[in-house]
Amino acid sequence: MKKKYLLAPGPTPVPEHVSLEMALPMQHHRTPQFSKIFGEAAEGAKYLFQTRQDVLILAATGTGGMEGCVTNLFSSGDKVLVINGGKFGERWGEISETYGLNVVWHNVEWGKGADAKEIESILAQDKEIKGIMVQASETSTTAAHPIEALSKLTRDRDDILLIVDGITGVGVFNLPMDEWGIDAMVTGSQKSLELPPGLALVGLSEKAWKFADQSTCPRFYFDFKKERKNLANQTSAYTPAVSLVAGLRVVLQDIKEEGLDNVFKRHNRLARATRAAVQAMGLAMVAPDSPADSATGVFVPEGVDGGKLVKSLRDDFGVTLAGGQDQWKGKVVRVAHLGYVDTFDIIIAISALEMALKKFGAKIQLGKGVAAAQEILLEAY
Amino acid sequence: MKKKYLLAPGPTPVPEHVSLEMALPMQHHRTPQFSKIFGEAAEGAKYLFQTRQDVLILAATGTGGMEGCVTNLFSSGDKVLVINGGKFGERWGEISETYGLNVVWHNVEWGKGADAKEIESILAQDKEIKGIMVQASETSTTAAHPIEALSKLTRDRDDILLIVDGITGVGVFNLPMDEWGIDAMVTGSQKSLELPPGLALVGLSEKAWKFADQSTCPRFYFDFKKERKNLANQTSAYTPAVSLVAGLRVVLQDIKEEGLDNVFKRHNRLARATRAAVQAMGLAMVAPDSPADSATGVFVPEGVDGGKLVKSLRDDFGVTLAGGQDQWKGKVVRVAHLGYVDTFDIIIAISALEMALKKFGAKIQLGKGVAAAQEILLEAY
Repeated sequence: MKKKYLLAPGPTPVPEHVSLEMALPMQHHRTPQFSKIFGEAAEGAKYLFQTRQDVLILAATGTGGMEGCVTNLFSSGDKVLVINGGKFGERWGEISETYGLNVVWHNVEWGKGADAKEIESILAQDKEIKGIMVQASETSTTAAHPIEALSKLTRDRDDILLIVDGITGVGVFNLPMDEWGIDAMVTGSQKSLELPPGLALVGLSEKAWKFADQSTCPRFYFDFKKERKNLANQTSAYTPAVSLVAGLRVVLQDIKEEGLDNVFKRHNRLARATRAAVQAMGLAMVAPDSPADSATGVFVPEGVDGGKLVKSLRDDFGVTLAGGQDQWKGKVVRVAHLGYVDTFDIIIAISALEMALKKFGAKIQLGKGVAAAQEILLEAY
Repeated sequence: MKKKYLLAPGPTPVPEHVSLEMALPMQHHRTPQFSKIFGEAAEGAKYLFQTRQDVLILAATGTGGMEGCVTNLFSSGDKVLVINGGKFGERWGEISETYGLNVVWHNVEWGKGADAKEIESILAQDKEIKGIMVQASETSTTAAHPIEALSKLTRDRDDILLIVDGITGVGVFNLPMDEWGIDAMVTGSQKSLELPPGLALVGLSEKAWKFADQSTCPRFYFDFKKERKNLANQTSAYTPAVSLVAGLRVVLQDIKEEGLDNVFKRHNRLARATRAAVQAMGLAMVAPDSPADSATGVFVPEGVDGGKLVKSLRDDFGVTLAGGQDQWKGKVVRVAHLGYVDTFDIIIAISALEMALKKFGAKIQLGKGVAAAQEILLEAY
């Protein structure tokens, strides 16, 4: 017998009552009954995005929403600045180049957040840049980029958009779309939204919709203007992912009930507890200067194979964390703390990490990380 | 108290054990455990498509799979023949034009199947046509197009592809991809596959993969070559729709256990029973010459508002059928008989239709349609 625990940065655990909601009998999508559900989910999404603008609900994962931002807001030849501090920053650039955009790559060392002052000087020197594409939380490195500071560079200009991949940011920490002036923001269902993968949510500012009027990139499945028109009738252009939308409605009700501020505080508390724990264990964080509240990455100690460690955690201990990606493969472990996660999920993750590291021969004093986490987790009680 | 019954041409009812499978705890997608599930689903999909080629599993609805066929197999300027006999035929053309393809529209009267001889003569006169795009079953009209006959026009030529929207065809009636030489075939999860919407499956022939090597349309989320590479490792390029894939594995096991031939026979029996019933009721079928086994459309009797009829069926009787689309709005009712549907679903649909029509003042002899259906349904016992 082995109980299983999921603490990877997506998919995240699905609450039991949400699973059951999604297991209710299937229903037709072109009915007033389902339109009500779709409409309530879309309203809830506005609360989540902190916007009065429409938030589109697409049957795709987050990458589809990112592609839609590129193809609906820009045209071939448009110059965009891609902040590339990890695997998902790279993805913004790859999508943009696929559609013929002129990408200015701004590479940021893995584990660092972008420096808004550097971006400011790039923009000052190049007035042709029509968009900044960035992650709120770069999941591959667990680093956060300074979205509020970046928004100050774009919000008062009508010739440039700030496009934010909020896939592990939205619903984790504060990203008030309207207040800051974020022009496009994407999230996916399988992160803070506690749902299975299969939905992308995209919020767009009025300025972004003006860009959409000019854009000439080809798109069909991800046609934002068509979706917006359908959203006005509480539906989507093509068949919505009925069960996931039904789950989304419930999750967004739950988030509203908890209150976004409390959701952010919870995530921040879990993040701080995890950071305190790994530091007490003597591990080096991979993003110490700008850690995101969604997940915490650490370098595995010298002599430990991170790949084998993550495998043993999963297969021996039953605890699924994430390893490092690309250049950090085998060198990094990531503990996620977003979504349907609370105090004792962190205790499980940290105690499992302690035990597995000890098993792998690392110098670990059992319980030291757990105690450091407890100290902070106790704030909630 | 009102029990609800879903008999629309997608989404279709989800079997209870499949709903429960999808409600099992979420799991990470980059693990050997989930790869096994993904791999088994992909193997099952080959059985369903009757092909030895890879069948891709995409996190999108069928339209996304259709778009992928256009963008991965053709280039801007390529000439394609679109068989347009309804809303979904039109969609092939719209997608193709979005990506700059040169569309030859072959309009077929709604309710009719295409005439393969006409297509043959079009191809004989225009050797530049590089693809035929068609529906196996045009869901909007309940008519079937002659896929086997069309495949004979393309299978021995290496410069043209047959692209089949099998969204309400695959798993309903025989579409042996390899045997007939279908080059690309798409289906969606919410039809014969008895799952919620959110997955597109796409099978491609060797010839199609050669076309994919030449295609220059932009694509990112729907990049078939990238998906094929990932499929070799039992995964997908981007996060798969974990719960739907877990359900897909089970449904495909069920289909294999029932046996494709039996699945086709069941659908054909239900279709014949429905046709016999509506004819016994004195209703005119909208696609009498080439009816698909997925759904049966009928014109509502003179004086009856089809929109109100469908609404009353849904809200008063609890039976969800589909109305007519576009030019047939308010004039047509469609009874679907695909997916997790058997004898008594047809009895329910027909008896509800009889009662609702009587309520709406049509001349209906109650039970006459039911009896005609029973006669045929009895074959199974």
